[in-house]
Amino acid sequence: MCLIEEIPRRAERFRIEYADGSRRLPVPAGSLKGSQAMPRIDGARVLTDLKRLAEFGRYETGVDRPTYSAVDLASRHWLAGKFAEAGLDPAIDGIGNVFGRAEGATRRLLVGSHSETQPKGGWLDGALGVVYALELARAFAADPALSGLGIETVAWADEEGHYGNMLGSRSFTGRLGEAEIDAARSRDGVALRDALATAGFAGRPRIEVEPGRYLGYLEAHIEQGDTLDSTGRRIGIVEGIVGIWNWRVVLTGQQNHAGTTQMARRKDAGVAMVRLATQIHDRFAGIAGPRTVWTIGRMLIEPNAPSVVPGRAEMLVQARDVDTAILARYRAALLELAAECDRAGPCRCEVEELSQTEPRLMDEAFENAIEAAAEQHVPGGHLRLPSGAGHDAQVISHRLRSGMMFIPSLNGVSHHWSEDTREDDIVLGAQVFADAAAAILKAG
Amino acid sequence: MCLIEEIPRRAERFRIEYADGSRRLPVPAGSLKGSQAMPRIDGARVLTDLKRLAEFGRYETGVDRPTYSAVDLASRHWLAGKFAEAGLDPAIDGIGNVFGRAEGATRRLLVGSHSETQPKGGWLDGALGVVYALELARAFAADPALSGLGIETVAWADEEGHYGNMLGSRSFTGRLGEAEIDAARSRDGVALRDALATAGFAGRPRIEVEPGRYLGYLEAHIEQGDTLDSTGRRIGIVEGIVGIWNWRVVLTGQQNHAGTTQMARRKDAGVAMVRLATQIHDRFAGIAGPRTVWTIGRMLIEPNAPSVVPGRAEMLVQARDVDTAILARYRAALLELAAECDRAGPCRCEVEELSQTEPRLMDEAFENAIEAAAEQHVPGGHLRLPSGAGHDAQVISHRLRSGMMFIPSLNGVSHHWSEDTREDDIVLGAQVFADAAAAILKAG
Repeated sequence: MCLIEEIPRRAERFRIEYADGSRRLPVPAGSLKGSQAMPRIDGARVLTDLKRLAEFGRYETGVDRPTYSAVDLASRHWLAGKFAEAGLDPAIDGIGNVFGRAEGATRRLLVGSHSETQPKGGWLDGALGVVYALELARAFAADPALSGLGIETVAWADEEGHYGNMLGSRSFTGRLGEAEIDAARSRDGVALRDALATAGFAGRPRIEVEPGRYLGYLEAHIEQGDTLDSTGRRIGIVEGIVGIWNWRVVLTGQQNHAGTTQMARRKDAGVAMVRLATQIHDRFAGIAGPRTVWTIGRMLIEPNAPSVVPGRAEMLVQARDVDTAILARYRAALLELAAECDRAGPCRCEVEELSQTEPRLMDEAFENAIEAAAEQHVPGGHLRLPSGAGHDAQVISHRLRSGMMFIPSLNGVSHHWSEDTREDDIVLGAQVFADAAAAILKAG
Repeated sequence: MCLIEEIPRRAERFRIEYADGSRRLPVPAGSLKGSQAMPRIDGARVLTDLKRLAEFGRYETGVDRPTYSAVDLASRHWLAGKFAEAGLDPAIDGIGNVFGRAEGATRRLLVGSHSETQPKGGWLDGALGVVYALELARAFAADPALSGLGIETVAWADEEGHYGNMLGSRSFTGRLGEAEIDAARSRDGVALRDALATAGFAGRPRIEVEPGRYLGYLEAHIEQGDTLDSTGRRIGIVEGIVGIWNWRVVLTGQQNHAGTTQMARRKDAGVAMVRLATQIHDRFAGIAGPRTVWTIGRMLIEPNAPSVVPGRAEMLVQARDVDTAILARYRAALLELAAECDRAGPCRCEVEELSQTEPRLMDEAFENAIEAAAEQHVPGGHLRLPSGAGHDAQVISHRLRSGMMFIPSLNGVSHHWSEDTREDDIVLGAQVFADAAAAILKAG
């Protein structure tokens, strides 16, 4: 705890103005012992690029940059230019993924994240991992000691699901068919095909993973939760990405006049819903693993009028865990409670299984490399944790060894324009991430 | 029970075709002993007028006739004409109430109901009481033995609340101010003033109750519940109209990402709502009177998205009873549960008191008159009951002795175009209602 308390809580305490006007993280004495532990990150450059990228679609202190919007397209072309400046061969493929390819390298890591944002979202969600990748590419290229070790950069398209579900990384791993692209529409009803045509991407090939090209995939991201921020840890080593199981529970009763229908004759779907929801929360709490989360995020009753006995109700129940056995336990509990509710009456109760994503574990050697790099810079100031949110890394992990690193989100805020991270955490994260990438590539 | 089982369940068994083509209720032997028990209802005429009135805005087997719509205005002018045909002086006042005034009478009852409908509502809700009033006026006028006893008819405007809350009867009793009219808008945003101007009612005086003019007010209505239909009773004597108390309960937590926010750190307003709602239903069931009803008809959570921990939830809680003491008990229980919820955390819980209408008892002598008339025609086939729905009679009862009579609604359906009542029940109801009115006027 002592170490954690010593970590400066304000960015200002941690920044030093250098003679060239750049700001760099002061390196704790001894942290770079054996200083082949390069690459050397330029923290000021990372911050400058992140702030420039945030100009595309700025909204309050965040960003509104939906996939394939004009600002998103402009930002993708800007990124391609930055990849080229870093000495990479830029390419934007048929789904909008932006790649920076290191053709001359002998060993390569693919590094990146997504570059579009949630509606009125944060400036770092996705962007951080893309700019880290860019900085790593520059730092590796600048260091003769790392010659032959290539960082290939990528900015995935539509991780945030404006048109689909992780379109870019699924396209790259061969998990996105043409029929799905034909059918996909945005939340506003725009056909994905039309959006791709407007973007100028129609007819371009979609780049898929090339077997043997990479040692693996690394992604950095803000945590989006408050585990790091609330415990004062500065680096998160992601052990796995949770599986997300979703169910729809529908209660069917009988709509009636709320004044003239006696209680004994009612079949109130709203009453059935709140009673069942209460039982679900109680039961789920009793069978949770150490980090299981569950949510009833959506509830609807019909007709939802003050003087009408609800005739129909539905709720969406979700559980997340890295352990499939725990998720299966949740499923069994839900089905049992719903069946009891249906048997007891007076409302019918049905469960529809909406989706079940598989939990994905990250590569253990990659975790160790990230942890070792973190320990060198902030001894004890890091934490292994699962990712409760979905990330492109979970898709890529089906084809490449994958690792993820988190930096803190202030107060855990996410998917809101007020999302933010301290600048010293951003700079520290870039250095730890670069060291981990170098260690992985050297171990090759 | 025997008597109830003997009541014919099908209209066909009960109708007799007379030589003049009219259909009349066969009068059970002995039921009209002392046959000064006129007026004599023309059942066929009642049904014909109801069916004609239902043509204004017909929708499926029901009616869509919102207040001040073109079809509503046409129907009000048609009603004024029918009142004139019945020998009454017709008048439509500045709020759209249609009156038929019996200037020559020495003793008068005001009789009526509302004539607009719910959106896609039933053909009898309101219309029944207006056509009964018209038929009573005709029957009284036709019977020399009832000379001097006047039925004044009325079709109230906007009981159904398209622009306000019982506008017509509140206007008549001096409970509707000009400022409220200035401010009122329809559900579609049309200003009441504009609607009145379009209707041609702007500038007309609003007719208010004239002290001493009436012995009282009588209103007939379909039950809108299934108490009569499910027990085979054919006439309901309304003892009172329930008070309706409404509260908004707001739970404030903290909106968060459903994947990254650990359970222990959550302030889930949806969880707080379903737990509190369950407690409310349990507590309310324990302190109910014999006919108390309560409903949570509206529930909202925000942002109501499957992967977001709800940050805010609200529900509308309603209780109805004829006994103010029971309503006060409900209020106290709700406030206590909400305070406990607020104290326990993690969400804040606030209760807003939205409205409290006073229960209104009907006039006991009027109840007795309706009951005696019902007993004469269908011995044992009637029931005293409260009205769980609101009616103009509750407003009028502040100024005039008031009574209400119900006839059955098939399956208790209400506020839906499929609402219906058997024709023999409609005809029987008219005769019972006329007999009760005659008894009241004679007792004067």
